[in-house]
Amino acid sequence: MIEPPVKPIEWLEESIRIIDQRQLPLCEVYLELKTASEVADAIKTMALRGAPLIGIAAAMGVALEALHNKDLEEATFKAELENTIASLRATRPTAKNLFWALERMEGVLKAAQPTEQAVADLRAEALKIYDEDLETGRRMATIGAQLIKDGSTILTHCNAGGLATSGFGTALAPMYLAHANGIRFKVYADETRPLLQGARLTAWELNKAGIDVTVICDSTAHGLLRQRRIDIVFVGADRITTSGDFANKVGTYGVALSANASGIPFYVIAPTSTIDLDLASGSEIPIEERSPEEVSVIGGTRFVPQGVKAYNPAFDVTPHNLVTGFITEKGLIDRPFATNLKRLVRS
Amino acid sequence: MIEPPVKPIEWLEESIRIIDQRQLPLCEVYLELKTASEVADAIKTMALRGAPLIGIAAAMGVALEALHNKDLEEATFKAELENTIASLRATRPTAKNLFWALERMEGVLKAAQPTEQAVADLRAEALKIYDEDLETGRRMATIGAQLIKDGSTILTHCNAGGLATSGFGTALAPMYLAHANGIRFKVYADETRPLLQGARLTAWELNKAGIDVTVICDSTAHGLLRQRRIDIVFVGADRITTSGDFANKVGTYGVALSANASGIPFYVIAPTSTIDLDLASGSEIPIEERSPEEVSVIGGTRFVPQGVKAYNPAFDVTPHNLVTGFITEKGLIDRPFATNLKRLVRS
Repeated sequence: MIEPPVKPIEWLEESIRIIDQRQLPLCEVYLELKTASEVADAIKTMALRGAPLIGIAAAMGVALEALHNKDLEEATFKAELENTIASLRATRPTAKNLFWALERMEGVLKAAQPTEQAVADLRAEALKIYDEDLETGRRMATIGAQLIKDGSTILTHCNAGGLATSGFGTALAPMYLAHANGIRFKVYADETRPLLQGARLTAWELNKAGIDVTVICDSTAHGLLRQRRIDIVFVGADRITTSGDFANKVGTYGVALSANASGIPFYVIAPTSTIDLDLASGSEIPIEERSPEEVSVIGGTRFVPQGVKAYNPAFDVTPHNLVTGFITEKGLIDRPFATNLKRLVRS
Repeated sequence: MIEPPVKPIEWLEESIRIIDQRQLPLCEVYLELKTASEVADAIKTMALRGAPLIGIAAAMGVALEALHNKDLEEATFKAELENTIASLRATRPTAKNLFWALERMEGVLKAAQPTEQAVADLRAEALKIYDEDLETGRRMATIGAQLIKDGSTILTHCNAGGLATSGFGTALAPMYLAHANGIRFKVYADETRPLLQGARLTAWELNKAGIDVTVICDSTAHGLLRQRRIDIVFVGADRITTSGDFANKVGTYGVALSANASGIPFYVIAPTSTIDLDLASGSEIPIEERSPEEVSVIGGTRFVPQGVKAYNPAFDVTPHNLVTGFITEKGLIDRPFATNLKRLVRS
């Protein structure tokens, strides 16, 4: 099996090391985060991003904080760690994986005693979440790669790549495997305004791996889909509801609609940790609204006139009827999604 | 009747004065263009842009060149001016108005003699094209304003405003009139990558006029339309074919598709000079492809990694089935567009 194309996060026992994704592709800068509060800041400011990676980082943040508090007596330790978990939970509202990872850490925290054992168990759980994500990426790669035909053209939105995970990615994972298997294909990467994760991150990691990638403005994708110059669309997800409606980076809905209008298959690739069986439909997903400055100012230059408002929802919701299938580490999910998503998560 | 909110072009007898739209909204810089070649450069580099304004500028460029050549004998004068017209025709391929305006100038050139008369007639024709465009803007404003209800929210893409014309605009003209009439409404302006005409120009001119405007990333529009937070869409056009398929700034097709999917009225506002009865359908419209750098580099900062390709078509085609109606200076065109567009142009 192939190796992960990138290493966006690394556990260093008393700290974690991450690539500062805000500075890519111009600078490859690594940050060392020593406390859960530094991890929370990195998540909020999007030094690291991507639903699975946020979950991994948050889990590692809890494990770091446990280490720092290892000399506290049990009750104080647990109270401190509960606070840590609460503050990490408050960093970003939309991606399910964050809450899923913190729930696992909380479960371990509650079960373990004395403090020494809890410290060891929390560390082990965080590393397990990381390792599982690598394995999850491998499995999604295997399933998704079967859909990539020789000579085909793939469209993707935002960055659901190695940089959004432990290293393989979700939507990009099948591309790495197909490429390693000698399949020839090309990728159009939506630049993904406002933060340009497609232009900066997807282009960077695919290009580094030797995959043929072309960046387009987000609005260019629709015309390409209409002209059937795209054979298949692969995107990630931040939260998938029971119905199959899902949230992903703003713009995903428009891409799905255009793909659907032209009969082009549209696949969502995400681990089962992204599935939220507590939500019935997309309208229940909390959508993060970020600073208007992310829209108004690009690379230090202001483009929107002073005094003019900008509106900046980070995600949108795509209804399930526009989805061809979901690819998870447990397999490909077909319609009816409501039944099949539930069955899969519980399997 | 209201006055034009902006003056993007002005005839100064021996030169023309334009706002350098590349520098808006940060700097309001005016350029004085003295020759047709300077006008051609301004069109190519998008110091001025917008289908009607390109037509006006090209006509004025021919009139300027005629003045500079007023001492030539008739045959040489005509040959020189034919060259001028050819070079202006080669500046940008998509907008119909450029070719329409140059055809009018060419007709005048062929009919007039001696040189002295031709110089006067070409000047008069260019000023007539300018004056007609002002009147056209007023008429489209009157027709379109009837569609703007109190309390409504309008979405627009790119800049089809005063800055794209002699001063009133096409898609924005009805907004200026409705605002003057005391109708309250708000506007979402798609930022319109890559050149950000929505963020820079539409936001600037609407805000200057006191109209409530909010800038969004292009991909945000789809979610707003899906949530029916938009009541009506107004866009301009660069070329309208006999079928009603039309070309406009890249991204227009996606907006039309999303509006259509949510049952939101989608109007194209353009003068009849944008209609091209020589083309049967949208697939015949030549689509300008511009430099990849416009996508890769924003405000001097490179976002796409070195060595990665970018693809930059400036326009896309929207099929007629997604259009609710066309608003021209001669009236509102309903279905069937094929019949009604032809009838209107010939009326």
